[in-house]
Amino acid sequence: MKWGEIGDTLCPVARSMAIIGDRWTMLIISELFAGCARFDEIQAQTGTTAQMLAARLKRLEAEGMIERRVYSRRPLRHEYLLTRMGREFYPVIFALRAWGETWCKGSDEPLAVRMAHRKCWTEVGLDGLCPTCHEIVPRSDMDAQPSPDWATERRQRQDAYKAQVRSASL
Amino acid sequence: MKWGEIGDTLCPVARSMAIIGDRWTMLIISELFAGCARFDEIQAQTGTTAQMLAARLKRLEAEGMIERRVYSRRPLRHEYLLTRMGREFYPVIFALRAWGETWCKGSDEPLAVRMAHRKCWTEVGLDGLCPTCHEIVPRSDMDAQPSPDWATERRQRQDAYKAQVRSASL
Repeated sequence: MKWGEIGDTLCPVARSMAIIGDRWTMLIISELFAGCARFDEIQAQTGTTAQMLAARLKRLEAEGMIERRVYSRRPLRHEYLLTRMGREFYPVIFALRAWGETWCKGSDEPLAVRMAHRKCWTEVGLDGLCPTCHEIVPRSDMDAQPSPDWATERRQRQDAYKAQVRSASL
Repeated sequence: MKWGEIGDTLCPVARSMAIIGDRWTMLIISELFAGCARFDEIQAQTGTTAQMLAARLKRLEAEGMIERRVYSRRPLRHEYLLTRMGREFYPVIFALRAWGETWCKGSDEPLAVRMAHRKCWTEVGLDGLCPTCHEIVPRSDMDAQPSPDWATERRQRQDAYKAQVRSASL
């Protein structure tokens, strides 16, 4: 079976994966949920090449998951926003986060992001349950706070990216 | 960034994707959840080549997501079972299913699988909620029934695979 044929089935998992496609795309979507909307921000955080990122954003736009919005006329610059179709992908990212935190990290590694329930400011569990209110918290009621270590990692990625762009333009 | 470096971060989504890796792997895991445990069954349903499937199963085993069990001594044949780490991936598959059914299929296409709540035999929603009992149904209380169309599709895949194996051995 070819890549293009993977969605040629009634199976919804295969259909989804025909759009999401690969790891980079999943990371790009994850960054969009984290509030990273600009090309160079996403490139810095995911470590893709510009060409790869452009191709994947184009694909996501064609599939209807994201839309482009101009934020600068001179030079012409776009930011990328999740459409409703894109925003509704959140449960997948949330489930991947829970599994990754539980099964793919050492006990000495902190959560990347802590989620607080805006109603009571208790930390929401990886399963999305508030231990104080005993309810599943919708995304709109969660406040995401990057852990200090992850904030540092992200700053370093941003700095490394800037240094790379600078040295390429010399 | 190289493929191997994608997990070199505190981000749990990247860590997960460093293991799951690609679309084929997601489909393989989805088949394991559907009760497909044998190499040739998985190959028939996912449409991978034997080589690709073997490499991905080996990877999943090394990562601790699945384990092999002998089901035939002569010839030696294994089946593949999800470990606890693997079984806990279910929310990701369930969320991908909901999104795929909602956003990647036409209104004339049936659900691939219907889930019934064993307690009341009501159909569980794509969000996992039982409309009769008003509760989120755990996987162990759901009964999965492939729709007639999807059952037909799966039978056809199995037949096509058998015909292919037969013609290759002539």
